[in-house]
Amino acid sequence: MSKVKFAVAGLGRIGKIHLENLLQMDHVEVVAVMDPMEECRKYAQERKIPHIVNTYEELLVVAPFDSVVICSPTDTHADYVEMAAKAGIHVFCEKPLDLSMQRVVEVLKVVKEANIKLMLGFNRRFDKEFRKVHNLVKEGAVGQPHLVKITSRDPGAPPVSYIKQSGGLFLDMTIHDFDMARFVVGKEVEEVYAKGAVLVDPAIGEAGDIDTAVVTLTYTDGTMAVIDNSREAAYGYDQRIEVFGSNGMAQADNNYEDSHRLYTNKGISGSLPLHFFLERYAAAYRSEMASYVGSLKNGDAMAVDGTDGLRSLQIGLAAIKSLKEKRPVKIAEIGN
Amino acid sequence: MSKVKFAVAGLGRIGKIHLENLLQMDHVEVVAVMDPMEECRKYAQERKIPHIVNTYEELLVVAPFDSVVICSPTDTHADYVEMAAKAGIHVFCEKPLDLSMQRVVEVLKVVKEANIKLMLGFNRRFDKEFRKVHNLVKEGAVGQPHLVKITSRDPGAPPVSYIKQSGGLFLDMTIHDFDMARFVVGKEVEEVYAKGAVLVDPAIGEAGDIDTAVVTLTYTDGTMAVIDNSREAAYGYDQRIEVFGSNGMAQADNNYEDSHRLYTNKGISGSLPLHFFLERYAAAYRSEMASYVGSLKNGDAMAVDGTDGLRSLQIGLAAIKSLKEKRPVKIAEIGN
Amino acid sequence: MSKVKFAVAGLGRIGKIHLENLLQMDHVEVVAVMDPMEECRKYAQERKIPHIVNTYEELLVVAPFDSVVICSPTDTHADYVEMAAKAGIHVFCEKPLDLSMQRVVEVLKVVKEANIKLMLGFNRRFDKEFRKVHNLVKEGAVGQPHLVKITSRDPGAPPVSYIKQSGGLFLDMTIHDFDMARFVVGKEVEEVYAKGAVLVDPAIGEAGDIDTAVVTLTYTDGTMAVIDNSREAAYGYDQRIEVFGSNGMAQADNNYEDSHRLYTNKGISGSLPLHFFLERYAAAYRSEMASYVGSLKNGDAMAVDGTDGLRSLQIGLAAIKSLKEKRPVKIAEIGN
Amino acid sequence: MSKVKFAVAGLGRIGKIHLENLLQMDHVEVVAVMDPMEECRKYAQERKIPHIVNTYEELLVVAPFDSVVICSPTDTHADYVEMAAKAGIHVFCEKPLDLSMQRVVEVLKVVKEANIKLMLGFNRRFDKEFRKVHNLVKEGAVGQPHLVKITSRDPGAPPVSYIKQSGGLFLDMTIHDFDMARFVVGKEVEEVYAKGAVLVDPAIGEAGDIDTAVVTLTYTDGTMAVIDNSREAAYGYDQRIEVFGSNGMAQADNNYEDSHRLYTNKGISGSLPLHFFLERYAAAYRSEMASYVGSLKNGDAMAVDGTDGLRSLQIGLAAIKSLKEKRPVKIAEIGN
Repeated sequence: MSKVKFAVAGLGRIGKIHLENLLQMDHVEVVAVMDPMEECRKYAQERKIPHIVNTYEELLVVAPFDSVVICSPTDTHADYVEMAAKAGIHVFCEKPLDLSMQRVVEVLKVVKEANIKLMLGFNRRFDKEFRKVHNLVKEGAVGQPHLVKITSRDPGAPPVSYIKQSGGLFLDMTIHDFDMARFVVGKEVEEVYAKGAVLVDPAIGEAGDIDTAVVTLTYTDGTMAVIDNSREAAYGYDQRIEVFGSNGMAQADNNYEDSHRLYTNKGISGSLPLHFFLERYAAAYRSEMASYVGSLKNGDAMAVDGTDGLRSLQIGLAAIKSLKEKRPVKIAEIGN
Repeated sequence: MSKVKFAVAGLGRIGKIHLENLLQMDHVEVVAVMDPMEECRKYAQERKIPHIVNTYEELLVVAPFDSVVICSPTDTHADYVEMAAKAGIHVFCEKPLDLSMQRVVEVLKVVKEANIKLMLGFNRRFDKEFRKVHNLVKEGAVGQPHLVKITSRDPGAPPVSYIKQSGGLFLDMTIHDFDMARFVVGKEVEEVYAKGAVLVDPAIGEAGDIDTAVVTLTYTDGTMAVIDNSREAAYGYDQRIEVFGSNGMAQADNNYEDSHRLYTNKGISGSLPLHFFLERYAAAYRSEMASYVGSLKNGDAMAVDGTDGLRSLQIGLAAIKSLKEKRPVKIAEIGN
Repeated sequence: MSKVKFAVAGLGRIGKIHLENLLQMDHVEVVAVMDPMEECRKYAQERKIPHIVNTYEELLVVAPFDSVVICSPTDTHADYVEMAAKAGIHVFCEKPLDLSMQRVVEVLKVVKEANIKLMLGFNRRFDKEFRKVHNLVKEGAVGQPHLVKITSRDPGAPPVSYIKQSGGLFLDMTIHDFDMARFVVGKEVEEVYAKGAVLVDPAIGEAGDIDTAVVTLTYTDGTMAVIDNSREAAYGYDQRIEVFGSNGMAQADNNYEDSHRLYTNKGISGSLPLHFFLERYAAAYRSEMASYVGSLKNGDAMAVDGTDGLRSLQIGLAAIKSLKEKRPVKIAEIGN
Repeated sequence: MSKVKFAVAGLGRIGKIHLENLLQMDHVEVVAVMDPMEECRKYAQERKIPHIVNTYEELLVVAPFDSVVICSPTDTHADYVEMAAKAGIHVFCEKPLDLSMQRVVEVLKVVKEANIKLMLGFNRRFDKEFRKVHNLVKEGAVGQPHLVKITSRDPGAPPVSYIKQSGGLFLDMTIHDFDMARFVVGKEVEEVYAKGAVLVDPAIGEAGDIDTAVVTLTYTDGTMAVIDNSREAAYGYDQRIEVFGSNGMAQADNNYEDSHRLYTNKGISGSLPLHFFLERYAAAYRSEMASYVGSLKNGDAMAVDGTDGLRSLQIGLAAIKSLKEKRPVKIAEIGN
């Protein structure tokens, strides 16, 4: 069976993960990578990637390939996806496609016209914990969902310089939770109420963002979800979910460094959750890329498509508006 | 040492609990009880209570006593407390004092003028789980609190007839959580946003109430709390809390029927949470009454006083207003 | 319905527990107690027990009663049971009946001839955790039992003076586990291999006893059980069980002070197990006495009878012999 | 830095795991593999291994390499290690080296004379759970160890044909636990008492083996360990450890498919342990090989050496003797 030819655009932290996972897959051949940083290109050399270039423009012409994996900075995503689409190349793109609804809609139109496949990197959908809860809900194990609770806390805030261009907490961090809220119960959100505060670091407030938030989502059928976020959990990366419904409740816990329990006269102690997303979601990233490659090969629908990106962005923009205007905001107010 | 003389007004489910706990305490003597129902009076006869009467008016004069425990219907609380206060009798009163702010303020004024002691029955403050989290927060174990999460779900909805006169979900059920939110971090609430739905039983909606809710509280310092409620959890009584702060997180789980784990080829299974408040809070009710008796004997301040009742009622009224007006409501809007 | 009249012989730690539980039971009347210690008699006076005497001989004649609860020192048990039996009085006796097989057999003969009821105080059978595992096994939830594991560790060694007259670890402490091994799978033990060591306190070794042990039991059908004991667990009272069978495994854990989890950057911590038997088995003692009283009133067979005491003693004596002779010992070697 | 050249002998289930792990390591080059089965050689062709041969003799001469990984059947281990040693090739060998003490001693002599490195495949030492408990014990977290408990149960019995040539339960399965008992507390075993039964499948008994066992080990300082084994746990692979000492206890649990908890009116349920060793120990196999390669490159002592294999074999042979002679057996009786 012929191999699927890949290029990777951007070899930062997440680009390296995708590259390594692609390199270990049968039926995949990575023919080219692109990164403006010399150290990243050197990394690719050690992996013996045939073509290594500096710019996306060069990448698109350096060799023929079937799909590109876009891991470059957020503000390049929309352009890069469009360029790939116009070249008839399938795209796996890290989230978000763009921070502007209008631009996302444009890009999705180009993608549709070009008839290429597009998958967005909502990696948590491929985590075994979230997926299990999703499956239980889908199988009806909790009955009709009534309440969804998502806890999502990072182990530490990124540099303020990053925060300034991140789109803010809701588009940078909570957007994963917005996607999860839709994924886990398979329903659409109708209204958002966001409350936020600067409790971790005043510098984040000075940069115009918040670091702690509680967001209440209401789905079209009255089901409610509540998301709580913090940029800094002293004990590490905290990623939990709970779905409560008419027949019961399904929960998933964090993954821990190990399961040990130490009993002494001071109490019982155990290890912390896996520190951050690289550790917690290592297997999810592998499953995600395997899903993408599988869908490409089999011509299946993508597990996470452009509309999923659009919907999460809508919710994020509604949350921003809600925070600013101190009132619940309908998704319909955001437009499409 | 002389015994503290008690009367109990109302021998319904909760009145019986308090009576039994009083009967088992050293230094306490229950001299009189009152209940309009014959079967309840018979119950008291079996306990050999010296004086058993039909009305509160009779109770106050049938024999001298130091304190009355008021467990009669909510709409009698305010009057009964006032009558006791005017007679110079200390009062333990089940929550709430009244559903009207104005009436509560009046009663507290009478209580103050009479210089009697008043304790309100927020029993969860005496539960070992909530108390442990409270103590950890107080000792600084989680640093500065940022987020409080309270889950409070009943195993089944009460009859619609009860719901109609209950004051609604927020004053009947969530009021315990409002008190807990204040207790566990020792801060006052400034703003409330309540979202509710009728997902359990349409008859509850027809009665003008909701059965499922998410309430976001903001404290004066920006700390946030989120409470989720349901009238019907298929798996029983669900009472959990989590306080997240600058240095960590403290959680308390439900109490379970037993700790067993059964491993078979179908998975791992265990027992359900203790079914409802009588089981879960049996020990808390004992501690609560012991606290009240101890404070009476030692002249200490009450662990839960009239102001605590007032504040929770304010939050509840703000939640009702928020639900109705679909916007966050400041406590200051409720008045005092 | 007429009340069952009780006397209690011995008001030490365990006698007080039984007395308190009896006092709180409907249909029970405690008419007399006996203890040679003045302070214990004073305790009884405060409880307003009608007759309070110094000796067992006096107790038997001070007033008529249906049953005596024997909580006096072990070396009085056999005589006291015989005396009660001859007087036609039913007996609840703390374990063990005696440390000599011959004496136990004699006493059981007297009990049988007198046609009185006898129940032995193996309180753990009434603990909700052990009972749940017992019930699961009985219902076939684990299939045919293959392996039983019992962990039984005390929070601290008793004084050496106590140990010297205790009959040693196997008859004083492990005898509860021997009974549990029989109870939980409903099978008889055929062979015992005991290994012991002095690892906690050399003074225990000097007193001729051990403080740490692993005992392997083989049931008549080849099923095996393993018990591990220590006189001193730094973290408190450790009482766990596991039954593994052809279709699965059932476990029960300790009971903990509370369920809290504290997450900080140092790890996760929680509370210790309930400290010792008074805390852990408080409810079991209540259920045990309720079972005894219920059986008396209904004429049912006792939940724990004289044969249960005999069998556990046999296993204990076999364990002592095994330890001494460094070889597996058949129960049949102990005689009957 | 130059790469370490490897050959792999035997591409069965475990050989494939080691091959895959080697292929993903930097600084490692797999130059040759050997397997008598065509399908295994085909597997190697797909991995583009330069030299693929049918026999060990061919392997040793087909190309130069630094180390061989021996994953062929047990009865070839001793010869293959000797042959490699004589050729000056370092060896990673799956356990056991041989089922005969005499043969193992001979091989270790050859290894020593040849001055090559030898590491044995006791993979569980590299599992994060067992390692954590080992480290806690080493750091003194539980004080002086008193009791070690190891539970080791397979999800299902292998074919009787395999059992017949496996050396029996103690040398095939429990030998991992014997090694763990030594590893986790860093002490040597002095005496063994083994009790076994055929409870899973009579055919195993007919083949002269047992399928269920409890083994008590006594270390030279009186510390005791107890191992329980079953060939068939209905709920999957059960691998737990507990070390109890003067200051506390350290435990490690199984690893589970996921952490979900489902609460319904029937109880609480969760997922099973990872099914078998391939799943549970996938990461341990990677760490094990990384440890071996690291030690080779750095000239460090091997994490598991020939003596470790010898000691575990001794304990296993003592267990067999104990089971047969129905008595505790000193390690010294086995000879060296």
